Amino acid sequence: MKRLGILLSGRGSNLAAIAESIAQGRLRAEIAVVIGNRASAPGLEIARSLNLRAVAMPSQGIDREEYDARLAGELQASHVDLVCLAGYMRLLSGGFIRAFPQRILNIHPSLLPAFPGLDAQRQAFDHGVKIAGCTVHFVDERLDAGPIVRQASIEVQGHDTRETLASRILDQEHRIYSEAIQFVLDGNFEMDGRRVVCKSL
Amino acid sequence: MKRLGILLSGRGSNLAAIAESIAQGRLRAEIAVVIGNRASAPGLEIARSLNLRAVAMPSQGIDREEYDARLAGELQASHVDLVCLAGYMRLLSGGFIRAFPQRILNIHPSLLPAFPGLDAQRQAFDHGVKIAGCTVHFVDERLDAGPIVRQASIEVQGHDTRETLASRILDQEHRIYSEAIQFVLDGNFEMDGRRVVCKSL
Repeated sequence: MKRLGILLSGRGSNLAAIAESIAQGRLRAEIAVVIGNRASAPGLEIARSLNLRAVAMPSQGIDREEYDARLAGELQASHVDLVCLAGYMRLLSGGFIRAFPQRILNIHPSLLPAFPGLDAQRQAFDHGVKIAGCTVHFVDERLDAGPIVRQASIEVQGHDTRETLASRILDQEHRIYSEAIQFVLDGNFEMDGRRVVCKSL
Repeated sequence: MKRLGILLSGRGSNLAAIAESIAQGRLRAEIAVVIGNRASAPGLEIARSLNLRAVAMPSQGIDREEYDARLAGELQASHVDLVCLAGYMRLLSGGFIRAFPQRILNIHPSLLPAFPGLDAQRQAFDHGVKIAGCTVHFVDERLDAGPIVRQASIEVQGHDTRETLASRILDQEHRIYSEAIQFVLDGNFEMDGRRVVCKSL
């Protein structure tokens, strides 16, 4: 069984969705460890309530390289095959990324490359897009810019507010993150430039 | 009947789609004039074959302000209610844009704000997006950046090439441009910042 390491800073809704996908047999993997860089991250509580190994590793005030080395050590000790960022609000250092080549995924609440960075749903809403969405991508050293594994789109409705739009995007995040994780674990893809292409085609 | 002025530089496939929408009663408008800034633009031939008023106004070597003043004069003489860019490969001057406030539409083959500029479909393909699309937007003085009226998305398939992707995006362009024109002609919207919002909601 392939082993996932989940990094989070916040509420952990994507963690919960991944755990649910595993429980329902839609995702063939196990969660080896959940690491939160804020001791108070509600996502760690979710991990504990699911009987997952939950590790609080506060990052505040610690040098990025040093912190990331400890993070990598913890993940390697847990023998993870894939690192999944699930609301991890901290840039990863080059050293960390190189330690897990093509084995770090992130989910971002916009149709990248549009609206990278913070508050992507709000950026999209205020920009007045009629199609919004979310993206699962490999993590590289640039912000929200690595090769795209999967995207989902939704239509912005006339009655949408920033809140309802963000909520409907989140529903799609919960769906595609598990699908993308399975796709990457299956390994049935190759890179063509920065395109992630199915091998079986 | 509301009157459209169509500007084009190339093959005129969006012109043909608009004319078809009118013929089929899906778009309640008439095409008052089709202006091509290249005398050889195939779109002008299409206009003539449809018995539309087709005007060749070569722009090469003419100062933008001067050219655009003549363009505006031709459109005003044709009493157009809305100017529709349909593959018009030339930036419009501020003077032109101010002469037709919120009455110039463009169609762009990407989900803006991603991939503005030339070869948008190719940019999207090479970037490896999994969701592509097209955008109808009001034209302002910035490139492909005005308020968005309508968008359509398609999934990039594993077997897609740049060509098949561009072709499938074009099908969506043909569909949403007429819809967006009708929406703008109906006038049932208001601006909220840069958001185009339906009034009836």
